[in-house]
Amino acid sequence: MRIDGRDADQMREISVEKNPLKYAEGSALIKVGNTHVLCAASVEEGVPPFLKNSGGGWITAEYGMLPRATFSRNAREAAKGKQGGRTLEIQRLIGRSLRSVTDMSLLGEQTIRIDCDVLQADGGTRVASITGGYIALMEALKTLVGRNRLSTAAIAEPVAAVSVGLLGGKALLDLCYEEDSKALVDLNVVMTASGGIVEIQGTGEDRPFSRADMDKMLDLAEAGIKSLIALQQEALGL
Amino acid sequence: MRIDGRDADQMREISVEKNPLKYAEGSALIKVGNTHVLCAASVEEGVPPFLKNSGGGWITAEYGMLPRATFSRNAREAAKGKQGGRTLEIQRLIGRSLRSVTDMSLLGEQTIRIDCDVLQADGGTRVASITGGYIALMEALKTLVGRNRLSTAAIAEPVAAVSVGLLGGKALLDLCYEEDSKALVDLNVVMTASGGIVEIQGTGEDRPFSRADMDKMLDLAEAGIKSLIALQQEALGL
Amino acid sequence: MRIDGRDADQMREISVEKNPLKYAEGSALIKVGNTHVLCAASVEEGVPPFLKNSGGGWITAEYGMLPRATFSRNAREAAKGKQGGRTLEIQRLIGRSLRSVTDMSLLGEQTIRIDCDVLQADGGTRVASITGGYIALMEALKTLVGRNRLSTAAIAEPVAAVSVGLLGGKALLDLCYEEDSKALVDLNVVMTASGGIVEIQGTGEDRPFSRADMDKMLDLAEAGIKSLIALQQEALGL
Amino acid sequence: MRIDGRDADQMREISVEKNPLKYAEGSALIKVGNTHVLCAASVEEGVPPFLKNSGGGWITAEYGMLPRATFSRNAREAAKGKQGGRTLEIQRLIGRSLRSVTDMSLLGEQTIRIDCDVLQADGGTRVASITGGYIALMEALKTLVGRNRLSTAAIAEPVAAVSVGLLGGKALLDLCYEEDSKALVDLNVVMTASGGIVEIQGTGEDRPFSRADMDKMLDLAEAGIKSLIALQQEALGL
Amino acid sequence: MRIDGRDADQMREISVEKNPLKYAEGSALIKVGNTHVLCAASVEEGVPPFLKNSGGGWITAEYGMLPRATFSRNAREAAKGKQGGRTLEIQRLIGRSLRSVTDMSLLGEQTIRIDCDVLQADGGTRVASITGGYIALMEALKTLVGRNRLSTAAIAEPVAAVSVGLLGGKALLDLCYEEDSKALVDLNVVMTASGGIVEIQGTGEDRPFSRADMDKMLDLAEAGIKSLIALQQEALGL
Amino acid sequence: MRIDGRDADQMREISVEKNPLKYAEGSALIKVGNTHVLCAASVEEGVPPFLKNSGGGWITAEYGMLPRATFSRNAREAAKGKQGGRTLEIQRLIGRSLRSVTDMSLLGEQTIRIDCDVLQADGGTRVASITGGYIALMEALKTLVGRNRLSTAAIAEPVAAVSVGLLGGKALLDLCYEEDSKALVDLNVVMTASGGIVEIQGTGEDRPFSRADMDKMLDLAEAGIKSLIALQQEALGL
Repeated sequence: MRIDGRDADQMREISVEKNPLKYAEGSALIKVGNTHVLCAASVEEGVPPFLKNSGGGWITAEYGMLPRATFSRNAREAAKGKQGGRTLEIQRLIGRSLRSVTDMSLLGEQTIRIDCDVLQADGGTRVASITGGYIALMEALKTLVGRNRLSTAAIAEPVAAVSVGLLGGKALLDLCYEEDSKALVDLNVVMTASGGIVEIQGTGEDRPFSRADMDKMLDLAEAGIKSLIALQQEALGL
Repeated sequence: MRIDGRDADQMREISVEKNPLKYAEGSALIKVGNTHVLCAASVEEGVPPFLKNSGGGWITAEYGMLPRATFSRNAREAAKGKQGGRTLEIQRLIGRSLRSVTDMSLLGEQTIRIDCDVLQADGGTRVASITGGYIALMEALKTLVGRNRLSTAAIAEPVAAVSVGLLGGKALLDLCYEEDSKALVDLNVVMTASGGIVEIQGTGEDRPFSRADMDKMLDLAEAGIKSLIALQQEALGL
Repeated sequence: MRIDGRDADQMREISVEKNPLKYAEGSALIKVGNTHVLCAASVEEGVPPFLKNSGGGWITAEYGMLPRATFSRNAREAAKGKQGGRTLEIQRLIGRSLRSVTDMSLLGEQTIRIDCDVLQADGGTRVASITGGYIALMEALKTLVGRNRLSTAAIAEPVAAVSVGLLGGKALLDLCYEEDSKALVDLNVVMTASGGIVEIQGTGEDRPFSRADMDKMLDLAEAGIKSLIALQQEALGL
Repeated sequence: MRIDGRDADQMREISVEKNPLKYAEGSALIKVGNTHVLCAASVEEGVPPFLKNSGGGWITAEYGMLPRATFSRNAREAAKGKQGGRTLEIQRLIGRSLRSVTDMSLLGEQTIRIDCDVLQADGGTRVASITGGYIALMEALKTLVGRNRLSTAAIAEPVAAVSVGLLGGKALLDLCYEEDSKALVDLNVVMTASGGIVEIQGTGEDRPFSRADMDKMLDLAEAGIKSLIALQQEALGL
Repeated sequence: MRIDGRDADQMREISVEKNPLKYAEGSALIKVGNTHVLCAASVEEGVPPFLKNSGGGWITAEYGMLPRATFSRNAREAAKGKQGGRTLEIQRLIGRSLRSVTDMSLLGEQTIRIDCDVLQADGGTRVASITGGYIALMEALKTLVGRNRLSTAAIAEPVAAVSVGLLGGKALLDLCYEEDSKALVDLNVVMTASGGIVEIQGTGEDRPFSRADMDKMLDLAEAGIKSLIALQQEALGL
Repeated sequence: MRIDGRDADQMREISVEKNPLKYAEGSALIKVGNTHVLCAASVEEGVPPFLKNSGGGWITAEYGMLPRATFSRNAREAAKGKQGGRTLEIQRLIGRSLRSVTDMSLLGEQTIRIDCDVLQADGGTRVASITGGYIALMEALKTLVGRNRLSTAAIAEPVAAVSVGLLGGKALLDLCYEEDSKALVDLNVVMTASGGIVEIQGTGEDRPFSRADMDKMLDLAEAGIKSLIALQQEALGL
């Protein structure tokens, strides 16, 4: 049995509040256990220089963590004067994942910026950011349809993400922080509704792992992502 | 009548959630109308160099605003690589205000860091940060008492803050963003329960104002702060 | 009697050298006791983006302190790689104060940048910067008239600033550094010739202060500013 | 047939020059086709704070690219004043990979810093850095044995890395830049001699990929890594 | 005849005000024509790490230019967030020059920091900084003797600096800005009282120059430096 | 006899590899003893703002040193977040030297950027950068001729650089690091084929030096540069 009493293939309790923010074109507050991420999608006219006059749009993401999201306080990145490597890595991952499932050629020359800010962190903040970020993105697309800036919101395929790990010789779904810090392997998986892999990032933190282990973890991830996508659809009223 | 239907001396609706954060020694989510600030108090052993071996403690603050707290998105300070002048000014104000009402000689060589992060902004974020920051501070002091690191939490006098302004020849209490941006004068007042002025910052944005105007605004501020302090006491269960 | 023998309502000896700089459109070296500030006004074509095509102009300020302006040396901000919060706060105050008294719609699309550099600091550098900055500004306006870039220099109302404080239960005008560091309250006041308040910033450094105290300090400030404005007019030959 | 005439499972020509640098404790110049990386291992006394008095050592990595390593010049990161997200991501990957295969508890309180500097880039710089970095690390361990600072160099298991991709519906081994920029999927794999996965990072750049695709790519990677490890052993004279 | 009517071997009018600053251990305001530099020497206990426990002292310098020292305004380095290459080059030169003539082994473990801030610039600011910096240094050494922190101020040999150039085929002493910007060659020379060369930096800005030209310029420089050193001695009352 | 057995007027062994880089318009790997510098010339359309519409071109340089180029590792400038004063000084020198010998009015509005990256450092890296940078520049000019972007490569006069020093009372040519660190005087000389001085930078590190010493060093430098230019011509096939 796991630290918090869950089964190996059981996710933490998840809730999603749609559009908690008054001004953002789309937003979502996702809570996966004690991990809480506020995701906001902002639409801006125009695209980065390399897309000028392409007719297509762009999606990008930024990630941050409030200083006291964590067990002990982390220094504020704005005060340190730079974003750390972990932050940059995560926000690049979120951006790639959401671009990968969206047909940006249909977006027109608009940029959607997804801000994922972690209010509280108990493991899995990057995967919660992707899962919640998709909802914020969809809400923003609906807003654009409402503003006649887009003909349909259905330009993005559902995508969600989970972490899986190997702990005590067992594959576990949706690691909390304490499990994550003890796991031998940490695997983050981003998948679509149809089971396509968007991103996979696995690290043998303490020692290498076998392909058999990876397969077991991917099976867990696939099941977890299915349930996450169902939850997203429900939240989106689809 | 005001933009949002309030009387000149009427504050917006205010709510306080105590300790929304699981890990912080004390925290508060304060909502003043559409202005929402998450305040977290973190206790650290030790004090800045200039207080080493003084036996006394220190209180300091940091302030931030999520990029999409506002009507249109603001660039993330961590991404820009520095905190702006407005941010630094506000966090210095919050720190001074809370130090001013606390007997830090009784705190022992501990530092309390108050993080005020604006989730949504509709004017008055700095004053909401002070009002909410006081609650987070008090909760942290209680935690310290519980940990036997402090003998009583009663080392800080209640303090709260409001903004007042002059608009259309009339003094108005608790400006929302739209009022604030049109006001001729913007006055932020930090006061104690006993009516002592902790900080006063007034700016004649478009044109100078008279002492008579200032007196009218101070009267409004005093009344507003009284109601805020009552609300704080209630939230703190005092 | 005060540290340096002055009466409570007595300012330090003040001198102003007009246009000590050969290249600036306007400049002033103001000495308030041992506080010496070199103020330079530079005119640039054009305005910030938000004023483009408005027909109006802009005034802004920068503030700096030479490393050995102070009793013990302060690290050079250029070497540290950033301006501190105090610096940013002061230069924002100077800019706001000078804009507040100037009819910028008459300036045309020109920007006037006021550089206030403290050569020596003995308290009150921000208020001396405003008082001296006004002279530099007026001289620059005269230069613009001479260049046929402005029809009259009379677009800015006189403005000056002083600090007042509460020390040993008494209100004192124009604090020197030693007084300032001991004062319970530090109040900076920016006023026009006609007694209008442009900015007021008061801090109860050690403990809150009453409105009665504030009124006493404001009376002192008002008298001080009158004498400063007389001195400015004389320096400007008006 | 591929752009450069290779078969799908064929790596580019690879050469390794051992210890091209006179001063480094260990170094290697690895050339994988037109990708050339200079890897240097530097030993420093002591470990980061979190390992003080643990008796164990630390391995970390830094990555850089000369401005004209690429087809068109890239701005120098030192001149821009910060390392980009891609750089930070890669150097974190190199460090994790080498730590993962080394028994750092046997290293003693020494830090080995691996600098991987790309002299010329034609795709696969991160995987070449890991493959070459391992050789530099081993040479540094030998140097430490020679200095009586380590009892045996055999504390690190062989590790190498390759990129594989999906292009035109086919899995390809060891992508060059032109292939990489057209590939639908880019998968970087870090493996040990015994087939253990140290890191796996896969990105569906244009569209998601299936688990079957991933399996095909992993088979290619495994074969490629076997040949790389044989080459490393030969270079190391093992 | 030169732009300002001087002979080829004639320096601009020079004046030195000794100790214009109240707090610095030593200071000098040097005016070479319209180039005005305020030099302050600050003494600090201790030395940089590489001199710890050596018994010897250290001299270093920082250089800055007020934004409106020049004909058109230059951006403030503190606001830009870094010192430019020219600034760093100049402050390294000043530091080397003053260290070169001082027997730092007699200084004890104290650091003297020379701040050279250009109030107004009309060419030759780096050489004026060295000439004025020497006076500030000597005054600081006297202060140390007065504080019983040094047995004699006579540990530094006189040093001064001038610029010479080649313009219209003629060698000219002490270039003003307008001459400097037109000169084919710009040579800065730092020399001791006894004619020893401390630093020589010559640049053929537009085209190379011959050794014969260099000799002519050095002759001018030597004469100029003799007169500067006489002036220093007079200012120092030696 | 010198540390490494050379005569006073003998240079270290020198080799030049032309165009080691596949993508750069021109490049050179120069080895002067154990000092190895990789020089790359990159051509970009356009010129800096101050040359827009002048019809002329621009040459500029950047300099870097790999962290383990040196005996003990130096921190990476990109990681520190800024280029040091020494780096900026050297790259300014390289740029000035190459501009000084090139008729940029014939280059058209193109910018050539010379990157000099030190792979290994044993003294004299700045002079090796200039000598090697000239070869990279010439190769880039040839490439431009080949691309019909320039009518002839013969717009730059040959230029090379050496360091000379004074050690044990003797003038020595081409100092290695160990000599350089012990030398009383360090003189860097940049000269053209015809003996014109482009740059001269001499520093009396420990004590001033005489003009007679300088003449002796210049004689050595002149001979050294002649041999370097012969070597360049050979490498360039001229």
